Amino acid sequence: MNVVNKEYQNKARRLLENWQDEEIFSRNEPAENLLAGMIDHTLLKPDASIAAVNKLCKEAREYKFASVCVNPVHVERCVQNLENEIATCTVIGFPLGSNHTDIKAAEAQLAEKQGARELDMVLNVGLLKTANYQDVFEDIKAVRLAGPEAVLKVILETCLLTEAEIIIASLLCREAGADYVKTSTGFSSGGATVEHVSLMRYVVNDDLGVKAAGGIRTREDALKMVRAGATRLGASAGVSIIGG
Amino acid sequence: MNVVNKEYQNKARRLLENWQDEEIFSRNEPAENLLAGMIDHTLLKPDASIAAVNKLCKEAREYKFASVCVNPVHVERCVQNLENEIATCTVIGFPLGSNHTDIKAAEAQLAEKQGARELDMVLNVGLLKTANYQDVFEDIKAVRLAGPEAVLKVILETCLLTEAEIIIASLLCREAGADYVKTSTGFSSGGATVEHVSLMRYVVNDDLGVKAAGGIRTREDALKMVRAGATRLGASAGVSIIGG
Repeated sequence: MNVVNKEYQNKARRLLENWQDEEIFSRNEPAENLLAGMIDHTLLKPDASIAAVNKLCKEAREYKFASVCVNPVHVERCVQNLENEIATCTVIGFPLGSNHTDIKAAEAQLAEKQGARELDMVLNVGLLKTANYQDVFEDIKAVRLAGPEAVLKVILETCLLTEAEIIIASLLCREAGADYVKTSTGFSSGGATVEHVSLMRYVVNDDLGVKAAGGIRTREDALKMVRAGATRLGASAGVSIIGG
Repeated sequence: MNVVNKEYQNKARRLLENWQDEEIFSRNEPAENLLAGMIDHTLLKPDASIAAVNKLCKEAREYKFASVCVNPVHVERCVQNLENEIATCTVIGFPLGSNHTDIKAAEAQLAEKQGARELDMVLNVGLLKTANYQDVFEDIKAVRLAGPEAVLKVILETCLLTEAEIIIASLLCREAGADYVKTSTGFSSGGATVEHVSLMRYVVNDDLGVKAAGGIRTREDALKMVRAGATRLGASAGVSIIGG
């Protein structure tokens, strides 16, 4: 595919003009028993001990979360702990997204080989900001091809982006074959907002999932994101969110 | 090499007992004209534009900094910009250090192939905290072997570590063939402190360099680190530090 920058910028402008704030808060809340199944139970702190990772897995099985989301070094351990009952999700090019495409692809390939079923990659924010859309697209596409079986979520790091950039990034993710667009790493200056989740949902319509992550600490935080259009939630506070 | 945890913990205890605070602030300040040559001129923000990276290179040539330190996606551009006059430094497993050893090694190999002459890798903090010293060692060693020609600096992320862990990490870095121990990524909860720099210098003696990074914004910050034993400084404020 040949990404033409002008076309994407025009599309973004039109979508932004049409996007209505009323879209926010318009979706239904999930049934009580379905919320846990929307949560990626997350532990990405660099100093997480192996004991903490094991505990995360135990909780994920107990509460039936969608996945555990851990750093790549813990993938094999989690896959073993979870025995196919719960998916292992890991991160690619995390949290800066500024490493080489070949390395992101190698990381995805290794993770999938080790049994990770979901991959949360960070797109290259600097290239997006420099309007190198073709390179942003190729970067995502390379990870898609390197981990063809995995659920691929692409983190936009929305706190660093304009609304137009969020739209363009979402379009590029869809074109490159991502399964989800995701708001945030949780390691930058801000997390998910209802406005950004709503905008991403508006842009990808029902073609892709939307994952809200970063700063989701309470049940009310979680439900706000779902009402705004999120179909997956990243949180380290999963247990308290579902009232466990 | 077979790392025996107990031995490292005993060594750390002895070194910590012998370490005197008087060691702090004992080194000479560099001659006025040598300070710039100690600075890695750094831009690691994920949203850095290509124009900002080009500007960084221009400044590095003008002020004769030790290197430019950039994310991997910018290595080729910097090598081209700097024409062998100034070294290109890049980061490996940055900033969490929690990805797979094979990926860190692949990242180092690619960076060296693209012309990076210095590699700042992040050690695996979680494994260090879990006292998996052998794995921490192997992780560093793998990067050392993958980038044999490069100057290898290992980031300990000292703000997350106890003093005993800083000592053990420094010993492991020396054993694994690193050229420098480095305090911080600049992306965690704290940056370089004179106490940590002094402790690292005490442990590695004059066998390795010590790089202070994170929060060094003024000339006085820089000189404090040098007096405490730093031989390299990472800073995004290099131009103002040297009064440019």
